[in-house]
Amino acid sequence: MKIDQVLHMNEGMGEASYARNSLLQQKAISIAKPMIEEAITTLYCNTLPRNLAIADLGCSSGPNTFFVVTQIIKFVETLSQQLNRPSPEYQVLLNDLPANDFNSIFKSIPTFKHELYNEIQANKIGPCFISGVPGSFYGRLFPTRSLHFVHSSYSLHWLSQVPEGIEKSNKGNIYITRTSPKKVLKAYYEQFERDISGFLRSRAEELVEGGCMILTILGRRSEDPSSKESAVHIYELFANALNHLVFKGLIQADQLHSFNIPNYIPSSSELKLQILKQGSFKINRTEVSSVHWTHCGTDNQHKSGAYNVAKCMRAVLESLVLQHFGETIIDEAFRVFQELLADTMSKEKTEFFNITLYLTKQSRSCVCFH
Amino acid sequence: MKIDQVLHMNEGMGEASYARNSLLQQKAISIAKPMIEEAITTLYCNTLPRNLAIADLGCSSGPNTFFVVTQIIKFVETLSQQLNRPSPEYQVLLNDLPANDFNSIFKSIPTFKHELYNEIQANKIGPCFISGVPGSFYGRLFPTRSLHFVHSSYSLHWLSQVPEGIEKSNKGNIYITRTSPKKVLKAYYEQFERDISGFLRSRAEELVEGGCMILTILGRRSEDPSSKESAVHIYELFANALNHLVFKGLIQADQLHSFNIPNYIPSSSELKLQILKQGSFKINRTEVSSVHWTHCGTDNQHKSGAYNVAKCMRAVLESLVLQHFGETIIDEAFRVFQELLADTMSKEKTEFFNITLYLTKQSRSCVCFH
Repeated sequence: MKIDQVLHMNEGMGEASYARNSLLQQKAISIAKPMIEEAITTLYCNTLPRNLAIADLGCSSGPNTFFVVTQIIKFVETLSQQLNRPSPEYQVLLNDLPANDFNSIFKSIPTFKHELYNEIQANKIGPCFISGVPGSFYGRLFPTRSLHFVHSSYSLHWLSQVPEGIEKSNKGNIYITRTSPKKVLKAYYEQFERDISGFLRSRAEELVEGGCMILTILGRRSEDPSSKESAVHIYELFANALNHLVFKGLIQADQLHSFNIPNYIPSSSELKLQILKQGSFKINRTEVSSVHWTHCGTDNQHKSGAYNVAKCMRAVLESLVLQHFGETIIDEAFRVFQELLADTMSKEKTEFFNITLYLTKQSRSCVCFH
Repeated sequence: MKIDQVLHMNEGMGEASYARNSLLQQKAISIAKPMIEEAITTLYCNTLPRNLAIADLGCSSGPNTFFVVTQIIKFVETLSQQLNRPSPEYQVLLNDLPANDFNSIFKSIPTFKHELYNEIQANKIGPCFISGVPGSFYGRLFPTRSLHFVHSSYSLHWLSQVPEGIEKSNKGNIYITRTSPKKVLKAYYEQFERDISGFLRSRAEELVEGGCMILTILGRRSEDPSSKESAVHIYELFANALNHLVFKGLIQADQLHSFNIPNYIPSSSELKLQILKQGSFKINRTEVSSVHWTHCGTDNQHKSGAYNVAKCMRAVLESLVLQHFGETIIDEAFRVFQELLADTMSKEKTEFFNITLYLTKQSRSCVCFH
């Protein structure tokens, strides 16, 4: 493999933007589409809102930013026509961390509106008010009872921080693996619990009664958090690449020991448990779907699958790796990673698992099990 | 004067940002402060809102962006304590055109919150939700009846476009002067009418009943729109500088004839007339105040007054001038302008006039004259 095949990611899109704008994301939204339509139909018919406030949490910036919003508005317009109701006003609230490129989102609004009005006549559609809301979705972002519909895709597996107290415990690993001590598993799970409960509590305060959420999360099938599957497997391969660099003397062993990825890849029962514990949401539907690793890519179909996965993962991990190990080892780390990916992908069935949830806000007295 | 005294503006802040972050702006807000406090007191006592939605229209980006919002929140907190009421939730809606640097605003949120919590304990203050709303305030920006308080400072004298059909009529001028034909005056006034009525109509739809606005506009004292005062005078001096460049052969006369500034510097009675015609707002108070031209600057007190004014006006006008005349003449145009400013400022009393209005939304059946 030539070194120039390991592309630099930050050409216009960084970090999560790339994953968010990959085929993976489009696939996730197409899987979620029937649930989104079911949720919107119920919400619309129950509340007939004059103003429909839609929040996209972890919206990122790039060609996919308005993708789900466009789907939702088109669907609501169809519903309004079927029910012979006036089109509502749309309030589109785009959230991501303050480092997200909101300027580029705002500059792409005319394109979004142009595409929308290509399909629906501008004078027939309700006005659409777009705003950017910077901040962490693990805390409050919006006023009390101000939202109708929340969407989030490929964002909730990011923890608010690396779990505390595991710096020197997870030797040679960068995420939970079979060799991780119990302490590490516990710290990761507790951070996931704190974050997800903060997310649910905040959204419960922000949604109107009957408001709903469609959440797509990178998850795992097994109940064992170290099970070699989905993104857990990818992180293990990246840890192998870093260990190779330790072996070659390019990285200090101590440096690797203190590097851990702030992700938690939950199972659907772990997610459901947290939702039931928090108690504000009814779980209407859960779906687990699989997507092949190669869907990580965008449209580089002339390149190898391993190239696409390495490119995507570099976009996702580059800033973390840079911050921790410095610039010099980046190319070599991702070159070795791509080799390991190619080898694994030629031998095994390599898939991600998506968990898609459809939740409705309910009063605390009525917790329903599904 | 040395050429290096004519500074390039776009070092971090461009266009309106510079004016917005000048002493002029701070002065305008300090003049508006008693009116803001009066408006907030009436609004708060009449509505006792659980959620207070505050919009700043033409918020720009820079150190002054959060200045007025901080003042408002501090004042509401004082009121809440005096009335022994719980602190409301604050919804801060920052609007400007999509080209504004919202990324930099969002990155400065921690500083804003830190400064706010320095004065008020974080656990005593209501949560503060900040969002960026890109778009022109001459149209709708927010959902119906979603705002309580609108603030706008030094933004409403910008028209949405150069008035149409005056390209070849306003020879040698760049704004209304005594030599402008009637057609030019009419076109400018009609554009002002269209824009301001669009602004008032949009805000009337967006504000709750009893919601209010404090607007500070760069205005003039005289009823004659070509009266040599305030910013009108400054534009006349800049036109003189450009005419000097025509004389020197650096600019084609035709190029200058087709350059007109998309501003309208209204008198307070012109503004009041538009407000009464539109009919949705009660005018509670109007104040005309003067500020010396030198307040255009920031803190370059070691430089001359003319330097500060030229620097400020370059920030305001540079992109318009660049687009129309190209890059080569910029430095020379502002060098000559600075000379003309120095000469004028040494001989005349050079002031801007600010018009500050305090308006309350009312039902259409009750139009009050003040």
